[in-house]
Amino acid sequence: MIPQKLTRQFVVEPGSKVDLKKFPTDWTKTKDAEALGKNLIKERANQILEESRKRLDAAQDLLYASDTHSVLLVFQAMDAAGKDGTIRHVMSGVNPQGCQVYSFKKPSAEEWDHNFLWRYMKALPERGRIGIFNRSYYEDVLVVKVHPEWLGPGQPANPDDKFWEQRYEDINNFEKHLARNGTLVLKFFLHLSKDEQRKRFLDRLNDPNKHWKFSDADLAEREHWKDYQRAFEDALSATSTKRAPWHVIPADRKFIARALVADIIVSAIEDLKLEYPKVSPEKLAAIEAARAKLEKKSNNKEQPADQEETTA
Amino acid sequence: MIPQKLTRQFVVEPGSKVDLKKFPTDWTKTKDAEALGKNLIKERANQILEESRKRLDAAQDLLYASDTHSVLLVFQAMDAAGKDGTIRHVMSGVNPQGCQVYSFKKPSAEEWDHNFLWRYMKALPERGRIGIFNRSYYEDVLVVKVHPEWLGPGQPANPDDKFWEQRYEDINNFEKHLARNGTLVLKFFLHLSKDEQRKRFLDRLNDPNKHWKFSDADLAEREHWKDYQRAFEDALSATSTKRAPWHVIPADRKFIARALVADIIVSAIEDLKLEYPKVSPEKLAAIEAARAKLEKKSNNKEQPADQEETTA
Repeated sequence: MIPQKLTRQFVVEPGSKVDLKKFPTDWTKTKDAEALGKNLIKERANQILEESRKRLDAAQDLLYASDTHSVLLVFQAMDAAGKDGTIRHVMSGVNPQGCQVYSFKKPSAEEWDHNFLWRYMKALPERGRIGIFNRSYYEDVLVVKVHPEWLGPGQPANPDDKFWEQRYEDINNFEKHLARNGTLVLKFFLHLSKDEQRKRFLDRLNDPNKHWKFSDADLAEREHWKDYQRAFEDALSATSTKRAPWHVIPADRKFIARALVADIIVSAIEDLKLEYPKVSPEKLAAIEAARAKLEKKSNNKEQPADQEETTA
Repeated sequence: MIPQKLTRQFVVEPGSKVDLKKFPTDWTKTKDAEALGKNLIKERANQILEESRKRLDAAQDLLYASDTHSVLLVFQAMDAAGKDGTIRHVMSGVNPQGCQVYSFKKPSAEEWDHNFLWRYMKALPERGRIGIFNRSYYEDVLVVKVHPEWLGPGQPANPDDKFWEQRYEDINNFEKHLARNGTLVLKFFLHLSKDEQRKRFLDRLNDPNKHWKFSDADLAEREHWKDYQRAFEDALSATSTKRAPWHVIPADRKFIARALVADIIVSAIEDLKLEYPKVSPEKLAAIEAARAKLEKKSNNKEQPADQEETTA
C-alpha cells in the first residue's frame, strides 16, 4: 500500500485551477523518489502493483456480494500515454465477470442524434461490477474543444465559453447522480510529456509488428499538444469533485503509472467499507433444513427406481 | 495442447441423438485417463490450462488486430457445475479489453415484450472481441421447458413439441447468421453428476462465508433433475451444428473441465488462421515520413518559444 500522503498529491483539489506543469510526468525525478532511493523504485512499484491486484480481486468479490455499489473508472490521456496497458495490467487479475471495459469511438449517427451523455449512460456498470471507460464523456469537452468542427450535427460552429461551462455542469450533475445512486467514480488523467510521446511513437514506428496500428491522425493530433493541455486543464479544473475526483498520474514511466492507479482504485473501494450480506435467522434455518435433506439422501442410496447418478 | 483425437469425443455430432449417460461426468474414471496414468492427470491438466491461457492471450490479440471475426462462447449447466469458476480461470489471463461476460437473469418486462432472441442479440461481442454468455438463449429451451409456467406473458400455457422445434430452428438460424457474419460460436455444456452436485451444495452449506449465496431455488430445481437432463438432451441434439458445435464437458473434476474448455476455445480460434493486417506500400511511406519528422524534432531541441516538455 502506498501511503495516502503520497497518493493525495496526485488528486486535483476540487475548485482549484489546474496547471499541468506543476504535476510531474516522470515521478522518478521527484524528491519523493529520491527519498525512496532510485534503485528501489521499479522493484517497489511492481510489488505494489502485484499486491494491489490481489486486493482488487478481493474487493471486487465483496463489491459483487454486497450488491450496493458499482465502480466507474474513467481514463483519459494523450495518445501513447499507456491507457490500454494500464487498464490491462491493473485489471487482469480481476474476475472478468466482475469488470467490463468500454472503448468509445467516433459517435454513430444515432448517437449524434442524442444528448451527449446518452451513449455513456447506456454503458454504465451494473451494481456489483467495475466499469472502465477507456475514453469517456470527457472527450466531449476535450477533442471537440480542440476541434469544434467535430462536434457533430446540430451543434454550434463556434461554441463559446458558456457552451463548455454548460457541458462541465452537465457532467458534474451526471456524476452527482451516479454518486447518489451508489457508483464510486474515479478519474485518471495519464500525464505524459511531449518528449516521452515522441519516443513512444518512434518505438512504434521502428517495430514492424506495430506498423498496422499506425495512423496519420496520431501525428496530426500531436501538433495540437498545447491546445489539448489547455483543454485538459480546463476540464480537470471544472470537474474534479470530492465525489468524483480527478487524478493526474505521472505517466512517463509505465511501472509508476500502473502501481499508482492500482493502489488508488483499490484503496478507494476498500474505503467504502463494504460488508458481506448478513444471513437472517430464517435463512439460517432454511440452510439447516437443506443440509439435512442433502445429507439424508447420501445415506439412502438404495432408493429403488430413482437413479441418483447420470454418469454411465 | 490436447490431441484433437481426445477433444473430439466431447463434441456432439451434428444430427445425432444425445444420450447424456454416454458422456462421462468424471473424466478421471475413463479409459483415456487410465492410459495417461492417474497420478499425472491433475498436474497435466493444470499445465494445459496454463499453456492455453497464454495461447488465448496471443489469439485474442490477433483477433483484435485482424478485425474480421468475433468469438461467442456459450456456457450452460446445472447449478454448481462450475460455469463461473471455469469462465474465471480460462479467461483471467486475457486482456479485459478484449473480452466481455454477460450473465442473463430473469427477463425484464421490456425483454419479455420482445422476441426471445432480442436481448441476446444486443449483447453480442463486437468484431475483434470474445463474448461470453454465462447462460444464454438456450435458457429459452431449457428452464422454460421444465417450467412452461415461466415462459412469460403472451406465450402458450401448454407449449407443444412444435413450439420447441420452432425455437430450436430459430436458434439454428440465428447461429447461422452469426457464423456467416464472422462470429465463431462455441457452446459448452458442463456435465455434472447429480451426486457431485449434492456434494458441492453441501460444501456451500457447510461454509458460513457462502451462506449469503444460498437460495431455496437451488434445491428446488434439483428435484427436476431428470427433466433438465431430458431438456438438455433435446436441445443439444437439435442445435449442435458444424458451425456452432456443442461440447459436453465432464465437470465433476474442475481441473479437467477448465483444461478442456481452455484448450478447445484456443484451438478453435487458432484454426481460423487469422493474420495481422498487411501494411500497404503507401502506409509504409507514411510511416517513413512520420519517423523522419519525429527524429528531426529530437535534434532540434533549441526551438525558441515552443517548449517541448510539459514537465515542471
